[in-house]
Amino acid sequence: MQNDQVVNPYEVKGNIDYAEVAKRFGVTIIDEQLKERIRRNAGGELHFMIRRGIFYSQRDMGWLLDEYEKKNRFYIYTGIAPSGAMTIGHLIPFELTRWLQEKFDADVYIQIPDEEKFLDKKKNLTLEKTHELSYDDAANIIAMGFKKGKTRIFLDTEYSKTLYRNAVRVARGITFSMIKDAFGFTTEDNVGRIFYTSMQAVPAFLKSVEEGRNVPCLIPLAIDQDVHFRIARDSIAKLGYYKPASIQSKFLPGLSGKAKMSASDPADTIYLNDDESTVRKKIFKAFTGQQATAELQKKHGGNPDVCVICQYYRYFFEQDDKKLEKIFEAERSGSMLAGEHKEALADTIVEYLKKQKEKKEKALKEMDKFIVRD
Amino acid sequence: MQNDQVVNPYEVKGNIDYAEVAKRFGVTIIDEQLKERIRRNAGGELHFMIRRGIFYSQRDMGWLLDEYEKKNRFYIYTGIAPSGAMTIGHLIPFELTRWLQEKFDADVYIQIPDEEKFLDKKKNLTLEKTHELSYDDAANIIAMGFKKGKTRIFLDTEYSKTLYRNAVRVARGITFSMIKDAFGFTTEDNVGRIFYTSMQAVPAFLKSVEEGRNVPCLIPLAIDQDVHFRIARDSIAKLGYYKPASIQSKFLPGLSGKAKMSASDPADTIYLNDDESTVRKKIFKAFTGQQATAELQKKHGGNPDVCVICQYYRYFFEQDDKKLEKIFEAERSGSMLAGEHKEALADTIVEYLKKQKEKKEKALKEMDKFIVRD
Repeated sequence: MQNDQVVNPYEVKGNIDYAEVAKRFGVTIIDEQLKERIRRNAGGELHFMIRRGIFYSQRDMGWLLDEYEKKNRFYIYTGIAPSGAMTIGHLIPFELTRWLQEKFDADVYIQIPDEEKFLDKKKNLTLEKTHELSYDDAANIIAMGFKKGKTRIFLDTEYSKTLYRNAVRVARGITFSMIKDAFGFTTEDNVGRIFYTSMQAVPAFLKSVEEGRNVPCLIPLAIDQDVHFRIARDSIAKLGYYKPASIQSKFLPGLSGKAKMSASDPADTIYLNDDESTVRKKIFKAFTGQQATAELQKKHGGNPDVCVICQYYRYFFEQDDKKLEKIFEAERSGSMLAGEHKEALADTIVEYLKKQKEKKEKALKEMDKFIVRD
Repeated sequence: MQNDQVVNPYEVKGNIDYAEVAKRFGVTIIDEQLKERIRRNAGGELHFMIRRGIFYSQRDMGWLLDEYEKKNRFYIYTGIAPSGAMTIGHLIPFELTRWLQEKFDADVYIQIPDEEKFLDKKKNLTLEKTHELSYDDAANIIAMGFKKGKTRIFLDTEYSKTLYRNAVRVARGITFSMIKDAFGFTTEDNVGRIFYTSMQAVPAFLKSVEEGRNVPCLIPLAIDQDVHFRIARDSIAKLGYYKPASIQSKFLPGLSGKAKMSASDPADTIYLNDDESTVRKKIFKAFTGQQATAELQKKHGGNPDVCVICQYYRYFFEQDDKKLEKIFEAERSGSMLAGEHKEALADTIVEYLKKQKEKKEKALKEMDKFIVRD
């Protein structure tokens, strides 16, 4: 274990050794056999994020597919805690969720816990602000192409009649001791934060409550969120519900090369609502790790594994493996210099965001077809 | 301070030194001047529980009456956490609340936190059971004569859309450290219990939230509940709402003479649903502190201050001070022996419960005029 690395929902710090994190969290690296099994059940196609190991670890996926193969279909639960405008990093679990919904014809529950970052006093956010951000996030999520009638989005403060009565049942099995170290909390943390994990646990068994029978649940999420479900699993099982299966992603790096793009650090982040010139400026400053001069770069080449530009293609903006390999090779060989490289990515992102904004405009007219309230 | 006494919502133990408790909690003993001021504002009458010092301490009652005299009227908030059938001890804050509602024409909010005792694992209660008990309590409360259209009763699990969104605002200002000792909690307590005090705080400012202006609030409650509001006061004030005023009662003793009648100890308790023979049996066994024989009692007399029979008259079943003094005098002089004394009280209680049951039957038909849900 590298001692400088911190991975929890409230802090991600240091150089992440993902294999070590998986081991420490008790999740299993996704192997080729499981990839093939997902591909087969998905009808022969495998999402590039699983292919490339961006979603790299899992809990109980084998069991989930056993059930699926026995015609016991699962639903999917994911979410986003608003603390600022949505970033391209946030798209990752939603993109996989959208694909899973399509391939497995699954119902999707999306939680927007508008109280979570409000309760994190360091964020200095009002509940009114997180509420406003929640609706903006919901529009962006709907814009990604989730299915009407099979997708339910809810804000915690608008759905707490449903959530709280189930959250107390989970909470009864979770002690302060259990969460203290896991979340990096102290006795000086507020009681809202301490309770919150119970609210996040509810959608992992809510469909079972509603249907009066056990329904398997799959949670796609970034690895830092795993702790919520690691802690709640036993409590959920004691209530008589299935423990949720889950699939964990690595983090999209920040523009500076930091391990995780953070919604609260504008300089390190591309927001979905950034305008064209902002995107170009930010990408222009992104870390590539290229050599000091064009000549040296041409001679020695660069390292696509640390180059943020290459990684953005890999994580999201180039789904074709062959095209991605060409980009990586150009970086390695030194044939593509930073400026050119950045311009091409900026073009791609600008185009992506333009389309996203158009789809978001349409989504704003359909919000009530997705958002549920008590 | 007597070291053996514990007074918090989850444990009451030892011989209670009420003056010491008031000092420790920072509440002020109600003096004659304040009694007169309450009497004057109530239209010339003073409730026997205040007259007799059963409600013996207060916070901010002076301020509350200042506001009232300036025509800034208050509302009243009280509640009951169901863990068993309602007892005659539970009637005390509700009886005062009913009187205050009548005299001050006040709106009343009654919280029934059906999650609270569920979260107390020692109670071993399901949420279904506390839910059922809540409705029984609600019927008993309505039966006491609260005003339709001015009284709102709610269960936490049915009103949590309203409560939770406000509870997180209070919770943000309350740390685990703040509640640990106050409630006798440890790091092994569950996160639901740790959060719960925030839910209990909400009705103390809910009317202000609803009306978009500050409305004074008065909370009648047993002294063990004071800690909830002691802790929440500063957090409520930081949100810009008035700190609630409150008025604290002593505990109705248990049948054995224990400091507090407990809903979870049947032998020590008279429940509102006890039948006649049960009431008579229980009263027959009650502690009186009388001398060992009738002859000795006639010679030396007894002590009405420790006699449970005398105290039940004083706390609830004899509102006329002159008649009460006669009962006390008969105890002191030894002219009334335990058997006779008990029979008279048993008759009174049986009659009271009979009427209460009749009123409860009527109340059951009017539940929806009182109970609100999200």
